[in-house]
Amino acid sequence: MTLVGVVGGGQLGLMLGLAGARLGLRFRFLDPAPEAPAGRVGELLVGAYDDGELLARLGEGADALTYEFENLPAHAAPPALLPPPAALAAGQDRLDEKRLFGRLGIATAPHRPVDARDDLEGVALPAVLKTRRLGYDGKGQAVLRDEHDVERAWAELGGVPLILEELVPFERELSILAVRGRDGATAFWSLAENVHREGILRLSRAPAAPKLQAEAEALAAAVLDELGYVGVLCVELFEHEGRLLANELAPRVHNSGHWTIDGAATSQFENHLRAILGLPLGPTHALAPSAMVNLIGDVPPLEAMLAVDGARPHVYGKAPRPGRKVGHVTLLDPDRDRLERLLGLAGEPTGSAATIAA
Amino acid sequence: MTLVGVVGGGQLGLMLGLAGARLGLRFRFLDPAPEAPAGRVGELLVGAYDDGELLARLGEGADALTYEFENLPAHAAPPALLPPPAALAAGQDRLDEKRLFGRLGIATAPHRPVDARDDLEGVALPAVLKTRRLGYDGKGQAVLRDEHDVERAWAELGGVPLILEELVPFERELSILAVRGRDGATAFWSLAENVHREGILRLSRAPAAPKLQAEAEALAAAVLDELGYVGVLCVELFEHEGRLLANELAPRVHNSGHWTIDGAATSQFENHLRAILGLPLGPTHALAPSAMVNLIGDVPPLEAMLAVDGARPHVYGKAPRPGRKVGHVTLLDPDRDRLERLLGLAGEPTGSAATIAA
Repeated sequence: MTLVGVVGGGQLGLMLGLAGARLGLRFRFLDPAPEAPAGRVGELLVGAYDDGELLARLGEGADALTYEFENLPAHAAPPALLPPPAALAAGQDRLDEKRLFGRLGIATAPHRPVDARDDLEGVALPAVLKTRRLGYDGKGQAVLRDEHDVERAWAELGGVPLILEELVPFERELSILAVRGRDGATAFWSLAENVHREGILRLSRAPAAPKLQAEAEALAAAVLDELGYVGVLCVELFEHEGRLLANELAPRVHNSGHWTIDGAATSQFENHLRAILGLPLGPTHALAPSAMVNLIGDVPPLEAMLAVDGARPHVYGKAPRPGRKVGHVTLLDPDRDRLERLLGLAGEPTGSAATIAA
Repeated sequence: MTLVGVVGGGQLGLMLGLAGARLGLRFRFLDPAPEAPAGRVGELLVGAYDDGELLARLGEGADALTYEFENLPAHAAPPALLPPPAALAAGQDRLDEKRLFGRLGIATAPHRPVDARDDLEGVALPAVLKTRRLGYDGKGQAVLRDEHDVERAWAELGGVPLILEELVPFERELSILAVRGRDGATAFWSLAENVHREGILRLSRAPAAPKLQAEAEALAAAVLDELGYVGVLCVELFEHEGRLLANELAPRVHNSGHWTIDGAATSQFENHLRAILGLPLGPTHALAPSAMVNLIGDVPPLEAMLAVDGARPHVYGKAPRPGRKVGHVTLLDPDRDRLERLLGLAGEPTGSAATIAA
C-alpha cells in the first residue's frame, strides 16, 4: 500500500485523491475544515497547516508528502515535501518570482518593490499594486489608474511588502502546466487560454496558441530545472505583441489545468502523483479540444449540465457561497452553441461565448 | 447532496464510487467485509447482503439504491432497487435466462434442465453442466466429454438444480454492455471480445466485431425493454458461424466493460449512475481501440505497468490471493508489442499476445 500525505484538503486534494485511488494509492490530508472535500477520498486530519504535530502525523508512513495549497508557511514545510520547499517559497512571493524569472532570462512586465508610500510617487500608470504574499483569486491586489486609486490602494494594502507591476495591455492570458519527475524527466501540457471574471478564473480553453508552445515549454523547463522541481508546476503568462511575459508561478496543480482530467492522455493530478512517487510520467497530449468552465458560488442542476452533449461536470461537494469555486465542467470538442449553454448554466449572461471565447 | 446506496462493496462498487464522486454524488455501501474496497469512497455498512435492518439503513435518505453483486437474494431485494428485482432474479438462474432469451427469439446454445441423475443419461457430449444459481468466474460448472466426466460432475454438482448446455464450438466470446434510463432511453457500447483463462476473464478487446454490433444491440434492447430495466446490463455472447448465441446475462456493471472507463466517452459506471438517478445518459462511443487485461492473484509493480506507453492501471486495493481479481489495466491503441509486455506483467507466458489476441 502506497500512502500519500497532502497538506490541504480542498478540491485540488479531492482530485488528487480521485486520480490516485484508481492507481490503488491511499491518502491522508491535513485541512482546517472538518468538511474538506478531500475527506471523501482519504483520511482527514483536521487542524492548522503549520501545526507541527499534525504535519508529523501527516508524514507518518507516507511514501510521499505534497501540498495542494501554496500558502503553507515555508518555514513549517517538512523537508521531505515535494515540490521542494524552495519551490514553495519561490511561489509565495511575487517579487521573488519575478526575480527568478529575471535570473532565467524570462521576460516579465516591468515591476518594482513597494515598501513605503513614497515608492508610489510619480510612478507610471496604469499599474497594478499587489501584496507580495498570500494573494489568490484577485485578492490582495488593486488596479491603479489615477492618483485617487493610488490613495485608496495604499490605504487598503499598505503596511505589508508590495509589488507594483506595469499594466501591460496584453492580448490574452495563457498558462502552461509542466511536470518534472524525480529523475528530472519533464512533460508539458498544451497551453491553455484563460479568462478571468472579477479576479477568478471563469474559462480555460486548450490547446491554445500552438505557435507559442515551444517558447512556453522552454521557459517552464528553465524554472523546473532551476528549482530542482518535482511535481506539477503552473506558469501563468501574458501574450503581448506575439511574445510571452511570465506573470506568476503556482508550484502545484492548478485550476487552469483541470481540462487535462477529461481532455489529456494523463491528467495533471495523475502526473503530479507519478512525479512525487518516482513513477514514470504519463503522456500529456490533448485528446480533444477542451473548454473548462468554473462553477462559482453554486452548482447548477446536474441534469441540465449533463444534457449538454460532451459536458463532463466535476462537483466538489462544497457548500454554496458567493465567489467560491464549487465545481467545474469540461466540454470536449466545444462549439459556440454548447459552450453558450454551459456558460449560461454557470451564470454568464447570454452571448458570453461570443465575447469571452472568441 | 445526492446519495446512492449500493449492495456490495467490491471493485465494482469502488469504480461506481469513483465515477460518482466526480459528479459530487455520495455513496453508502453494504458488504460483509470490513476491508471492502468501496469503503475508500463512501460510508460502509458491514453485514450480510440480506440483513433486513442493514438494507433499510442502506436505503435511508438514498436517492437511488442499486447493487454491484447479483447474488443478492432476490427475496431480500428492496422494492426500490434498480435494476429492478425482476431483472436481478432473471440474472440469478441460468435456466430462467435461457427461457427469457427464448421468449424474445434470441438464439442460445441447445440446453435442458437437469434435476436428477437420470436426466444425464444418453445426452450428447461434449456439453457443460452448470448449477442454475450462484455460479461465477467458472465456479459451479464442469465440462463433460465422456461418461467419466458425467460421474464426477454429478458427484460434485448434483443435488441442486442444474442446466446442461451443448458445448458449441464457438469462434469467440463477445459481450455487449447496454444501459437503459428511467425514461426508457437506451445506449450501447461497442461489442467487446473476451478471452477467459480457467473460467476467469483475462482479456477484453473493444471495439470488436462491428458487423455484429447491430444484431447485438437489438437483442440487448429486447432484454432491456422486456425487463423494464434501468441501469447497465451485460449480455455475454458466443459468435458461432457468423451468428450470435446469447450465453448469460449480468444485470449490473461488468468486468468486460471496464475498458469503457478509459476507452469510451462515458464509462459503464457513470452511465449506470446516470440511469438509476434519472439523469440523461452520456455518449458511449469508443475514444480509441482498447485492450483490458485483468490482474489476477496479485498486482505487478505500478512502475512496470506505467512504463508501458498508454497503459492505464486500476488497482483495487485488495489483498493478494490466487484467482482473485485485484486490478485491471486498460491499454489504449494496443499494438502487439505493448500488449505482450502487459500480458507478461499480468503473468501470461511469453507469446500470449500472439495466441490470445490474434
